[in-house]
Amino acid sequence: MRPGQEGASASALEGRIGYTFQNGRYLDIALTHSSYANEVKKNISSNERQEFLGDAVLSIVVSDYLFHTYHLAEGDLTKLRAALVCEKSLWEFSQALGLGDFLKLGRGEEMMGGRTRPSILADAFEALIAAIYLDGGIEPARRFVLGYIVDALENRDDLAFSDYKTMLQEIIQKNPEERLSYVLVNESGPDHNKKFLVEVRLNSNVIGVGCGGSKKSAEQAAAREALKLMGR
Amino acid sequence: MRPGQEGASASALEGRIGYTFQNGRYLDIALTHSSYANEVKKNISSNERQEFLGDAVLSIVVSDYLFHTYHLAEGDLTKLRAALVCEKSLWEFSQALGLGDFLKLGRGEEMMGGRTRPSILADAFEALIAAIYLDGGIEPARRFVLGYIVDALENRDDLAFSDYKTMLQEIIQKNPEERLSYVLVNESGPDHNKKFLVEVRLNSNVIGVGCGGSKKSAEQAAAREALKLMGR
Repeated sequence: MRPGQEGASASALEGRIGYTFQNGRYLDIALTHSSYANEVKKNISSNERQEFLGDAVLSIVVSDYLFHTYHLAEGDLTKLRAALVCEKSLWEFSQALGLGDFLKLGRGEEMMGGRTRPSILADAFEALIAAIYLDGGIEPARRFVLGYIVDALENRDDLAFSDYKTMLQEIIQKNPEERLSYVLVNESGPDHNKKFLVEVRLNSNVIGVGCGGSKKSAEQAAAREALKLMGR
Repeated sequence: MRPGQEGASASALEGRIGYTFQNGRYLDIALTHSSYANEVKKNISSNERQEFLGDAVLSIVVSDYLFHTYHLAEGDLTKLRAALVCEKSLWEFSQALGLGDFLKLGRGEEMMGGRTRPSILADAFEALIAAIYLDGGIEPARRFVLGYIVDALENRDDLAFSDYKTMLQEIIQKNPEERLSYVLVNESGPDHNKKFLVEVRLNSNVIGVGCGGSKKSAEQAAAREALKLMGR
């Protein structure tokens, strides 16, 4: 297969996304733009229906994560979700993944620069999310999506002071003699599906334990538990 | 508790929705309108954050169901989803459930007729979906949502000829001597979580088997399998 015509090999993409498909057809459909499907006309499916489904999978994964991680009001959660799932964000995620290299495009679309077009790349990213969901269920789709979302959130300055760790810190520092620390007590699982277990300690007492797919999310979960214990 | 002030009892609502909460706090929050939370001011949570989450749970449940049940193009799926999750639809579902009787409203909102206001009822319905999701995960939330969605779809004339059963029928009837039948071969589970197993037969041969939460959805799944077998 020539890159730029039929797209680079699917297994190379599986390596990049850290997921191996049981049924490669879902991945194949995710990578097939309608311009290619229309040109070939062998009754092959384009990625448009999977894009429809992927949009909803993306939304529940992002909403669930924001709901549990940030102590924000509904209006701010809604704005944040909209910013994370908009075409521009999905285009950036696609670029980071190099998704364009794997797309199957019709000749006209290829010549018009479709392989780097934001809307085509964003739609294919959603179709890819659906492919993982259809093949392996919500959990691998969640891992794939959060890999991008958590990074994007870390780069947002407007989220300082809205997270559980910061809230806990603000309460504790009213007593200058108290000391808060986060201790990684366990880390297990394969590289693409690691689980981290973190304790938050007040001086030497454990006041919360959290588990998550990253050290940061495990710390947030531990801080959240400590806040609950304090009736917050 | 007086109905109309603190709302009718939560256990009566659990009976109507066919789900018993492990943690009643999620249900309590779902029923608490911001006007009540603002009035009481005891740091209690209104249903707004759960509404944010419920919106996404609703979307994935509806999208997954439409994707697997109807052989429609992306544009039609999107229109259908929008019609099913719009305020008007959610208001109708709330009315069917009698959700208004259970809401906690502030005095001003009560006097202004908030208990029957479409936006308040639609938002509370989404918050209730989130309550079930937070308490029991996606499967009980799916059963609750589909109870309303499947009925709403059955009442839509524009969906004739788009479903798998109709597609299969259209293919088979080209040969007048062939006869298609759907046979319920098993039905199990408690009332609020029944599973139906249906075979679709071509003359006496089983050409597909489907499982679903209603006879209709099991038949659709069986027809879909038969179409796949035929390379459709």
